[in-house]
Amino acid sequence: MKVSIIQMAPQLGHLKANIESISSLIEQSDSDLFILPELANSGYNFQNHQAAFEASETLEKSVFLVALCELAKHKNTHIVTGFCERNKHELFNSSVLIGPKGVIGIYRKLHLFLNEKNIFNAGNLGLPVFDTELGKIAMLVCFDWMFPEVWRKLAMKGAQLIAHPSNLVLPYCQSVVPSYALVNRCYIATANRIGTEGNLTFSGQSILANPNGETIIRGTTDKSQVLSAEIDLSLANNKYITELNDVFKDRRPDVYGNLEAND
Amino acid sequence: MKVSIIQMAPQLGHLKANIESISSLIEQSDSDLFILPELANSGYNFQNHQAAFEASETLEKSVFLVALCELAKHKNTHIVTGFCERNKHELFNSSVLIGPKGVIGIYRKLHLFLNEKNIFNAGNLGLPVFDTELGKIAMLVCFDWMFPEVWRKLAMKGAQLIAHPSNLVLPYCQSVVPSYALVNRCYIATANRIGTEGNLTFSGQSILANPNGETIIRGTTDKSQVLSAEIDLSLANNKYITELNDVFKDRRPDVYGNLEAND
Repeated sequence: MKVSIIQMAPQLGHLKANIESISSLIEQSDSDLFILPELANSGYNFQNHQAAFEASETLEKSVFLVALCELAKHKNTHIVTGFCERNKHELFNSSVLIGPKGVIGIYRKLHLFLNEKNIFNAGNLGLPVFDTELGKIAMLVCFDWMFPEVWRKLAMKGAQLIAHPSNLVLPYCQSVVPSYALVNRCYIATANRIGTEGNLTFSGQSILANPNGETIIRGTTDKSQVLSAEIDLSLANNKYITELNDVFKDRRPDVYGNLEAND
Repeated sequence: MKVSIIQMAPQLGHLKANIESISSLIEQSDSDLFILPELANSGYNFQNHQAAFEASETLEKSVFLVALCELAKHKNTHIVTGFCERNKHELFNSSVLIGPKGVIGIYRKLHLFLNEKNIFNAGNLGLPVFDTELGKIAMLVCFDWMFPEVWRKLAMKGAQLIAHPSNLVLPYCQSVVPSYALVNRCYIATANRIGTEGNLTFSGQSILANPNGETIIRGTTDKSQVLSAEIDLSLANNKYITELNDVFKDRRPDVYGNLEAND
């Protein structure tokens, strides 16, 4: 299958402009899976909760998601997109997986960064893995990267590719992604945005790492790019290390458990 | 404090030669903590269990540990060393922490690699952290590196420096160490051996990474070296990311637990 990271600059509070620029980039490309940055419908650097609330949409009535669903149907493709989600009076920094038949699943960012804590609620949908016609796909969002537990748990739940919409300012995450891919033997695609919003300049350098920990896509720091590669998700099923070693079977749950929730 | 990684080639089954070469290297250097490779008393590539058994020593009657304890007392220093340990009829691939007053603690490798499974028992002492006059020191051994859980759990238990005696053949681990140091905000020192034993050539490239994920020591692929750096273990106490974010306080145990054992 072909996967494409769309590295671009969503515009703050400009829903229509974002739909147009994203639609244009996807229309011009052929891929089985497009991965967009965090908060692709809304931009990132909101002054306050109210500004974010005004730029948010509900899952049920999102003009943004309707447009992407039509695009996914028309192009017979899949899309992962960051999504500023409103649910009654709560906001979530979410990621949505869309297929040719519509929305497949949603993830809500578990770990909020800095001012996001004043705007969004922390994710309350756990760490889902979605079984699609392409393979088993999971999502994380931006700052989630700092927590090795989430990559590990998703891989243990069978995720073959973890799509990671991001709005990273510092480029630390991109240096760590190949390590997470290697020790969990899965694909990781970090779609990072570019551009500047107020005092924040985003770091681009979107990255796709394969289950061998090799970097097979790397974006520039500041250019809008559609970055594509052929990948084979079945490689992520192979947790073999040697004839006597396996990434997961060699774990020692007697010492450190199985990353299960306490509840 | 000053930490020194001793990158060298222990000789298979030659206890006295190993004591002499290690003693000579430590005698010539001044450091607060020396870190030696895996199985530094015995070498690595045993033909079978019997050969390893003959090269092993008990904690109580180890000529090797007596020599290192005398050295640590005489030089007023600390030493972490890989140790082929016999305990009745069982063998363990262990690491021993020695201080000026003698043995402080022991760790037994939890994750055994390939033929080690035919020779050693898997570790049964969990993941201890030792509170020394230098700071909080923990140990892992070689292939343990593949399991992000152990680095995380040790850091959560307060380890400021994780000493990692190794006999790595492939250099994947060395590429991952800075990532583990960064996301756990601790020092990691991988003391890897060099040289060839039978069909195995070891990859050297010993590495020390600081809590910022920066590589501050890197060895060559094939030279015996004492690699030293000044470090400040108190930096590992700082889990601050932003005024609203903390490496550990931001964890979501409600989603993935606290790396606690199931028993």
